[in-house]
Amino acid sequence: MKPSGSGDLLVRLLGALQVLPGVGQRSAQRMALHLLQRDRQGGKLLAEVMLEAIERVGHCQQCRNLTTDEQCVICRNPERDDSLVCVVESPADVMALEQAGVFSGSYFVLLGRLSPLDGIGPDDLGLELLIERLAGGAIRELIIATNTSVEGEATAHYLQELAQPYQIKVSRLAQGVPLGGELEYLDRSTLALSFNNRAEIH
Amino acid sequence: MKPSGSGDLLVRLLGALQVLPGVGQRSAQRMALHLLQRDRQGGKLLAEVMLEAIERVGHCQQCRNLTTDEQCVICRNPERDDSLVCVVESPADVMALEQAGVFSGSYFVLLGRLSPLDGIGPDDLGLELLIERLAGGAIRELIIATNTSVEGEATAHYLQELAQPYQIKVSRLAQGVPLGGELEYLDRSTLALSFNNRAEIH
Repeated sequence: MKPSGSGDLLVRLLGALQVLPGVGQRSAQRMALHLLQRDRQGGKLLAEVMLEAIERVGHCQQCRNLTTDEQCVICRNPERDDSLVCVVESPADVMALEQAGVFSGSYFVLLGRLSPLDGIGPDDLGLELLIERLAGGAIRELIIATNTSVEGEATAHYLQELAQPYQIKVSRLAQGVPLGGELEYLDRSTLALSFNNRAEIH
Repeated sequence: MKPSGSGDLLVRLLGALQVLPGVGQRSAQRMALHLLQRDRQGGKLLAEVMLEAIERVGHCQQCRNLTTDEQCVICRNPERDDSLVCVVESPADVMALEQAGVFSGSYFVLLGRLSPLDGIGPDDLGLELLIERLAGGAIRELIIATNTSVEGEATAHYLQELAQPYQIKVSRLAQGVPLGGELEYLDRSTLALSFNNRAEIH
């Protein structure tokens, strides 16, 4: 687009805003004008918090989740059960599970998934940390909660084999028809799977 | 939501991102994780450009558009016709018209519209600047391009009366069926207006 009044700087701002996921030219324009015309205070705060987070947020030394400290708030919380470990792909999955509010154990965040084509192997998922915890004997159940994509499934399989020598319980999130899902619009594989895994009603 | 690993700072970042228009809890989460996991460089740049823009971008002393200088690039451009002045509500409208590429005159940005209920009167729209330019005798056409909302129409009417003493041409953007618009889905008022204002085909 042509510069339209504040030349270079506004154009640079529009470009920079588009690093955000889901933000294209149009929404960048809307965001920039909103910040400049209506909320400079909020924009300044956002920029400052962003810089601080980028500077200070690292990974938990125990579970690899995002944190500003050595250990994240979940690993530090004495009320969470360390012997239950739920393995997820990303910090977003931790947030989703925490919001569901069903789990009071601890997590292990892979920060990715096995993907040989992208050159992502077991070493890139920090699995030595998990093996250490498994070998320590303090884990009694490993709950595998990787995504149900091809790579997620392969990662789940790998984790299952990894845990086998330690003779602990290994589980996987249930798969089937989502709540509120309409059979009519469900993909065929999920439908077939949930049909085959049908549960008897008592 | 509960903090989930980096405690306070991540929660503050999620809150701060929601000052952006159209960004709720979900997209804030997606943006924060994207920045922290995949593009810290881009995030840092964005924060810096944002701070610079918030610091430096002000308003053009001639047309009130956003600019880092005393006059915006359009007002400074000797190839633009200063005697045609298009009056718009916001810098976003200037961008839209510039992108349409039909106009080579200059602008006047109201940075709002008349809205007595919100306490926005003529003084808040910088009209003394426009009157000065009208009185200077250098304007030959005033093109009114306020929105077609109730307030926009009222503002257009006010501008028309304002220009009357100076005996210059005053025009308004054409109204009717938008290109690609389907009559079936058009609101009744627009349909009635475009029917009544039908143009003879030669």
